[in-house]
Amino acid sequence: MTLPTDPAGNLAALIRCASVTPIEGGALSTLEKMLKPLGFSVERPVFSEGGTPDIENLYARRSGNGPHLMFAGHTDVVPVGDETSWTHPPFAAEIAKGEMFGRGAVDMKGGIACFVAAVARHLESKGGLKGSVSLLITGDEEGPAINGTTKLLEWAAAKGEKWDASIVGEPTNPDALGDMIKIGRRGSLSGSIIVNGRQGHAAYPQLADNPVRGLMTLVDALLHPVFDKGTKDFQPTNLEVTSIDVGNPATNVIPAKATAAFNIRFNDTWTAETIQAEIHNRLDKAAKRKKYRTGKTTPVDYELVWRDRPSHVFLTRDDRLIEALSGSVKAVIGRKPALSTSGGTSDARFIKDYCPVVEFGLVGKTMHMVDERVALADLETLTQIYQRFIGDWFERDVS
Amino acid sequence: MTLPTDPAGNLAALIRCASVTPIEGGALSTLEKMLKPLGFSVERPVFSEGGTPDIENLYARRSGNGPHLMFAGHTDVVPVGDETSWTHPPFAAEIAKGEMFGRGAVDMKGGIACFVAAVARHLESKGGLKGSVSLLITGDEEGPAINGTTKLLEWAAAKGEKWDASIVGEPTNPDALGDMIKIGRRGSLSGSIIVNGRQGHAAYPQLADNPVRGLMTLVDALLHPVFDKGTKDFQPTNLEVTSIDVGNPATNVIPAKATAAFNIRFNDTWTAETIQAEIHNRLDKAAKRKKYRTGKTTPVDYELVWRDRPSHVFLTRDDRLIEALSGSVKAVIGRKPALSTSGGTSDARFIKDYCPVVEFGLVGKTMHMVDERVALADLETLTQIYQRFIGDWFERDVS
Repeated sequence: MTLPTDPAGNLAALIRCASVTPIEGGALSTLEKMLKPLGFSVERPVFSEGGTPDIENLYARRSGNGPHLMFAGHTDVVPVGDETSWTHPPFAAEIAKGEMFGRGAVDMKGGIACFVAAVARHLESKGGLKGSVSLLITGDEEGPAINGTTKLLEWAAAKGEKWDASIVGEPTNPDALGDMIKIGRRGSLSGSIIVNGRQGHAAYPQLADNPVRGLMTLVDALLHPVFDKGTKDFQPTNLEVTSIDVGNPATNVIPAKATAAFNIRFNDTWTAETIQAEIHNRLDKAAKRKKYRTGKTTPVDYELVWRDRPSHVFLTRDDRLIEALSGSVKAVIGRKPALSTSGGTSDARFIKDYCPVVEFGLVGKTMHMVDERVALADLETLTQIYQRFIGDWFERDVS
Repeated sequence: MTLPTDPAGNLAALIRCASVTPIEGGALSTLEKMLKPLGFSVERPVFSEGGTPDIENLYARRSGNGPHLMFAGHTDVVPVGDETSWTHPPFAAEIAKGEMFGRGAVDMKGGIACFVAAVARHLESKGGLKGSVSLLITGDEEGPAINGTTKLLEWAAAKGEKWDASIVGEPTNPDALGDMIKIGRRGSLSGSIIVNGRQGHAAYPQLADNPVRGLMTLVDALLHPVFDKGTKDFQPTNLEVTSIDVGNPATNVIPAKATAAFNIRFNDTWTAETIQAEIHNRLDKAAKRKKYRTGKTTPVDYELVWRDRPSHVFLTRDDRLIEALSGSVKAVIGRKPALSTSGGTSDARFIKDYCPVVEFGLVGKTMHMVDERVALADLETLTQIYQRFIGDWFERDVS
């Protein structure tokens, strides 16, 4: 039996499964076939929730005597967009000029393909592992993410699974392989402000109360002053007003209501709770100030509604994990990666509640785009980095 | 033949015609029947325009040797709203506790009823008129106003009609008969600002350009500083932002575009052209300033679109006309009315291009409301004021 030591072969097999969320498309079965010969026991739990499609997931473990490393990721991919714009069909894994084309090439079937190849090569060369390795793979990362990583972690933990560290194989490198390891993420919170005024005729403003002025006051308080200047590990906290809506088509009518929606990405100066309190405080203070650009002191009548669950900020402080990964990158490509907490949220925010987690994968430039593709050289390099990391991390942990 | 000297009788006949815009409902025919015995020649031109309903209008003239006074108004009424909420049926002209109930009682079949009664009484007592009187009555004041007063004025002027003064019979009194004569109106202008930004992910604001910040800058420039402090005859110019719209439902997306709509009511410090230039100038200057609450100097990319035609500001300076009307009010009710330019626009803004125009009618409190109604005493008083005014104005003009 040939072991899946070739990342390009692994990736081609995965790309040929059209696993657009929520469709499994054969991707998990293909992965299972690679893992079985390596000694993994594989489970395929399906999770359901009203209002969302059922999702198939995969949890594979190769048990050994020692610490437990989890590799996390997803086999689902975003839709192909305008298929006629692709230079090569999106599910064919065709190779041209040293690059493999296909949806999921970098986000993130490529990361899975490399990790499997790295484990295969490690086992081939060392004959075993000084501990346990598991793959926690969801089919619901690009979709509603309801029946994916969170439930898979709960399900595995309920069975008694415990992990010592995790690496997420998402494409973390902006331009070139080795640029960046993610060692944390900012938190994310969304909310809406609704300002209630009094409707009236535009010719009689004294009889009405235009909620737009109140909203301007509150939006100004959201945008100013800056929340912080950033920390050692994080970018500054940033708030974006993502929508303002009144919906009044009549030019001679002062509207009754105005709303604003905002999203805030906060660093480790804050927790979800303290940043919420700060927003509440800013709005309450501003609402008591003079009405925007008037001398009136009538308080602004508003409500604040938080949307969805907050994503909590986190920073991984496990030096062993970070140094093993960073050192492996340096050893293979000759330069140190940046340790970053930039960008959006990822499933790492769920994993961090179970064990220290870092993220490192391919180059993200073509993710979600037409002609998503990966350099074959990058697949080989990432496989070598992962292989080195597996060796080093188990060694370090034992020492 | 009995002459229509009783305003309550005239009004009851008009209210019983359900002339909700654009329906004539017999109202103009009823009016024609009142005017014929008084010696008026009556024409009923119908005006049409694509996309709007055809509208019947009325122009009646009683010719005499002397100056020409025009009474202007409308027989169309706004819808009744929730008919079951009316204490008395809206087209029955029922009387209770000294008040006549009905849609149009004050806005403005009542004004027409009183003016017709005033002319009838004048003719009855004096046997004639020292000049010409005409009634310019539209059926399209409460609707799109496309096939109404403007076309009726053009049509009459094209036939050679010339007027020396006009009185509009709209309900001008806020609380009690005799409160207020309108001697002008502010102008009105509406526009929209569209700010173009660059869409992006809320976690990567540096790669996007949030148009909400640019819009905040421009809206602030619209609201501040105040345009003027008012003039001898006019309230201060006022701008209301009537809507802000982005329409972005995704909390993690920075939108590409944001719009704001505004309406400005301007006094005689400005013309439509100078206030438009002021707005352009404010926006252009603000667009070049630093982005709202950021240190960035990228100019705001925006468009300004003016909506509809402007309503021009006007002030009637015809002392004879104003003093004849004001003096008639004083003579009948014992107090001088305020000379005001407050409130919204009216058809007087079209008439002012043909002759000096003032507005005086009933008390507006119940206009457009359920249970619109008029005190019978007010009908009698307004008839006396109009009668006195007719006598005085022709006398003054002759002298």
